[in-house]
Amino acid sequence: MIGINPQLDRNGDLRHLLTTEGLPITILQRILDTAESFAGVTEREVKKIPLLRGKSIFNLFFEPSTRTRTTFEIAAKRLSADVINLNVAVSSQTKGETLLDTVNNLSAMHADMFVVRHSQSGAAHLIAQHVGPDIHVINAGDGWHAHPTQALLDMFTIRRYKQDFRALRVAIIGDILHSRVARSQIHALATLGVPEIRVIAPKTLLPAKIERLGVHVYHNMAQGLKDIDVLMMLRLQHERMESAHLPSTEEYFKYYGLTPERLALAKSDAIVMHPGPMNRGVEIDSEVADGAQSVILPQVSFGIAVRMAVMSMLTKN
Amino acid sequence: MIGINPQLDRNGDLRHLLTTEGLPITILQRILDTAESFAGVTEREVKKIPLLRGKSIFNLFFEPSTRTRTTFEIAAKRLSADVINLNVAVSSQTKGETLLDTVNNLSAMHADMFVVRHSQSGAAHLIAQHVGPDIHVINAGDGWHAHPTQALLDMFTIRRYKQDFRALRVAIIGDILHSRVARSQIHALATLGVPEIRVIAPKTLLPAKIERLGVHVYHNMAQGLKDIDVLMMLRLQHERMESAHLPSTEEYFKYYGLTPERLALAKSDAIVMHPGPMNRGVEIDSEVADGAQSVILPQVSFGIAVRMAVMSMLTKN
Amino acid sequence: MIGINPQLDRNGDLRHLLTTEGLPITILQRILDTAESFAGVTEREVKKIPLLRGKSIFNLFFEPSTRTRTTFEIAAKRLSADVINLNVAVSSQTKGETLLDTVNNLSAMHADMFVVRHSQSGAAHLIAQHVGPDIHVINAGDGWHAHPTQALLDMFTIRRYKQDFRALRVAIIGDILHSRVARSQIHALATLGVPEIRVIAPKTLLPAKIERLGVHVYHNMAQGLKDIDVLMMLRLQHERMESAHLPSTEEYFKYYGLTPERLALAKSDAIVMHPGPMNRGVEIDSEVADGAQSVILPQVSFGIAVRMAVMSMLTKN
Repeated sequence: MIGINPQLDRNGDLRHLLTTEGLPITILQRILDTAESFAGVTEREVKKIPLLRGKSIFNLFFEPSTRTRTTFEIAAKRLSADVINLNVAVSSQTKGETLLDTVNNLSAMHADMFVVRHSQSGAAHLIAQHVGPDIHVINAGDGWHAHPTQALLDMFTIRRYKQDFRALRVAIIGDILHSRVARSQIHALATLGVPEIRVIAPKTLLPAKIERLGVHVYHNMAQGLKDIDVLMMLRLQHERMESAHLPSTEEYFKYYGLTPERLALAKSDAIVMHPGPMNRGVEIDSEVADGAQSVILPQVSFGIAVRMAVMSMLTKN
Repeated sequence: MIGINPQLDRNGDLRHLLTTEGLPITILQRILDTAESFAGVTEREVKKIPLLRGKSIFNLFFEPSTRTRTTFEIAAKRLSADVINLNVAVSSQTKGETLLDTVNNLSAMHADMFVVRHSQSGAAHLIAQHVGPDIHVINAGDGWHAHPTQALLDMFTIRRYKQDFRALRVAIIGDILHSRVARSQIHALATLGVPEIRVIAPKTLLPAKIERLGVHVYHNMAQGLKDIDVLMMLRLQHERMESAHLPSTEEYFKYYGLTPERLALAKSDAIVMHPGPMNRGVEIDSEVADGAQSVILPQVSFGIAVRMAVMSMLTKN
Repeated sequence: MIGINPQLDRNGDLRHLLTTEGLPITILQRILDTAESFAGVTEREVKKIPLLRGKSIFNLFFEPSTRTRTTFEIAAKRLSADVINLNVAVSSQTKGETLLDTVNNLSAMHADMFVVRHSQSGAAHLIAQHVGPDIHVINAGDGWHAHPTQALLDMFTIRRYKQDFRALRVAIIGDILHSRVARSQIHALATLGVPEIRVIAPKTLLPAKIERLGVHVYHNMAQGLKDIDVLMMLRLQHERMESAHLPSTEEYFKYYGLTPERLALAKSDAIVMHPGPMNRGVEIDSEVADGAQSVILPQVSFGIAVRMAVMSMLTKN
C-alpha cells in the first residue's frame, strides 16, 4: 500500500504508528522499553506524568469501541494531554463530509495527534499521508488490516512472562481471517525473532496463502498446541456466525474452544492471552480465562503503559 | 443482601458507598461535615482542590442519567481527578461481555473509583465484592434499591435549613414503591434520629409492609402534611402510569400533587424538596416548585459538595 | 426580541454573546484583537493558558453538532477550563423537563458558562434572561436566527487577509433563507463598515425583504461576483432539497456552484470562505475549495482563537 516506510521520519524515529508490518526491531524494542518505564513494578503503579501537557489528542472513532477508546483516553490523560473524543459515525460523516475534509478540519483545530479507528482497511494510512508535519497518527484498528497497539501490548506481555522471544513457540488461535489483531501479532512476533508461529483455525476462518507470512497452519487443537509457550486467543465475532463461515458457536467451541483439557496439551508453563472482550464458552472456557495461566487482565494493564509509550515517542520526535 | 458491612474497611473507615442502610451515624455525619467544608458559605463558592490529582474516576452508567452523571463528573473535576465517562449500555455489553468482565477490564486500566448506575438492584454491591483493595465503588442508583448520594445530599440540605434532626417531622410523598431514593432517605433519616417519618402515597404506589422500616403510612395529603417540617417529594415516573398503577396524571395531581393550598397544611416554615427532574403539574405545582419554601435548587448545589465529600473520604482511606 | 442590549453589562462590557446584531463595534473589535493575541503568527501557534482554571464550561447542545461543540471544547481546554459536554436531546429533555428547569439545575451545579446550540430561534436569549449574574451564555447557533462566533471568526479571517473592512465588497452566496450564519455575517459586516454587501441566491432561498438589512440582492453569479473581494459561501442543507425549495443539487450547482470559472469573475485576489462542512460539487467545486484563494481551513483555526477570546472576555467581566 505504501512505498517507503511512512511510519518513520528522516532520522528513523517514529512519526506515525500504523502497522507492525515493517516496523524496525529497534523501534519495536524501544516502544517496549519505554512502556516498561511507565508500567512500574506492579500493574497498578502508573503515575501521572506531564510529558504531553498542552497537547491535544483526538480520539477519532469512525467505528464504536469503548474499550480501545478508553485505554487511549486514559493513557493520554496520564500523560497530561487534553483528550477530545469524536464519534464520527454519528456526526459530520452523516452530513456528507469526506474523511479527508473531516481530518483537515480537525488538523486546523490544532490537533497534535489522531487516534484513528475505522472499519475500512487503510484509513489510518490515508490520514497519515495527508496530515501536516506536526501531526501524528496512531492506528487503533482499521478493517481487517492492522491493530498495532494491541499487538505491541501483546509483545510487552510476552516479554514480561517469557523474556526471550527467540526461544518461543507461539500459537494464534481462532478467526484469523477477519482479525486485524492476528495480522499485527504475526508481523511483530516475526520481527522479534520468534522461531515458530502457528495459526490454529478451521479452513473457513483462515485467509488464503497465510503460509506466506511464515506461519505454520493447523486445523487441529491437539496437534497445534503441542510444545506451545504462548496461546494467543482471538475473539470470535458473532457477526461471522451468520455469514455461514461457521455452523454454530457450540460447534466451534467443540473443536476450537480452549478448555482446561486442551490447555494441558501445551507446555505446563504456557500463558494464555486474549485481546478481549471474551466470549466465554465460545472461544474460551471460563476456567481457563480466570485460571492461573491466564494473563488476560495484565494485558489490559500493560495496554495503558504501551499506549503511553507510543504517544510519548511520537510527540518527542 | 450482604453479611458484614461491605461499606467499611477494617478501621471502620468508608471503603465503598453502596447504601445508607446500615451506614453508621459517625460516617454519615462525617460525610455531612466534610461536605460543609466544600460547600462554602453560599452555594456557588466551590473551589477547585487538588485532592484527587492523578486519580481516575470511571462513570460507569449502565442506565442513562445525564443529571447524576454530570454531578459526579463536576465533583470529580473539582477535586482535580481524571474522569472517564462510559455509557456501557451501548458498548461492550452489547458485545456479550458480562458485567464482571467489564469491571475487571476497567480495574486493570488503573481505575481508582467506579461510580455505578445500573437498572438492576444489587449491581453496585456485586461490583464492590469483586474489585481489588485499591478500588472504591459509589452506588449512583441501582434498580429500586438505593441511591445513597441523593439521600445524603437531602440530609445535607435538611441540616442546612433545619439544624436538629431529632426535632423533625418529615414526609416523603409520592411513588414510594419504585423509588430507590425513598428507601435511601428513610434509612438516613432514621439513622440521624428523625423521630417521625411519614410516607404519603396511594396504596398502589407503596411497597408491602413498608411500616417495618418504622415509617407512618398516610393515603391522604391533608392528614399526612399536618405539622410537617420537611416535605420530600418524589418524581412520578411516566412509565409507571402505563403499568396500571395509576389512572392518569391528572387524577394523581388531584389527590397527591403538591399545591400551595396543600403546602399551607404543613408547618409555616416547612421546606419542600425534590430530587428532580420535576414533573410540573403532576407531583408538584409550579408555584410551589419555584416558591419561597422550595429548596430544590440548593439541593442540586449541595449535591456537588456531598459527592466531593464522599469521593475524598473514599480515596483518603 | 429584547429591549436593552442583553449582551452588555452596566459597564458596557460583554456579558453574553447572543448575536452580532447590535453588538457595538468597540466590543466587536476588542474580540478580534483579543483573538489575535491567542492566534499567534501561524495558525498552529496556540498555547495553553491558565485564564479559566477552575471554571466550568457547559456545552449544552440540544441539537447535535460535533464540529462546533469540538471547537468550543478545545478553546475552553486551551484556557484550562473544565468542560462538561451535555447532549441534552437524549437525556433529561426526554424525561419531560423544561428547558429552564434544565438550565436552572445546571446553574446550581456551579456552571460558569453555557455554550448553547438549539434548533429554536431565541433559545440562547431565553437562557441568558434567566441565569444568575455570575453565569455567561454563548449562542452557538439557534434555529435560523444567529451564530455569532461563526460570524466573528469570519470577520477575523477577513481582517487577516484584507485588513480594511471599509474598502471591501463582500458577497454571501447560497441558502440565505435558512442560514443563521448569513444573518450573523451581515450584521457583523455592516457594523465593521463594509460598504457593499451582496447576497447571491435563487429567490426560493432568500428571506422576504432581505434588502432591509442593507444588502444588495443578486440572482445571477456572473453579475453578483463582479469586483468582489470576499466570497462567503453557505452550506446547502440537503434537507432543504426535499422541501421543494430546489429541483436538485445538480441544478443548483449549475447555476450557483462556485467553479474556478465563476471565481475568475471576482477580483483576482478575492478570498473564498465556507463555514463547513462543505458539500463538494453542490455549492462549491473541489478545485476552488482546495485552491490558492481558499481560506476555509484557516477559518477553522481562527475559530479556536476567536472562541478563546470570547470566553476570556466573558469571564473577565
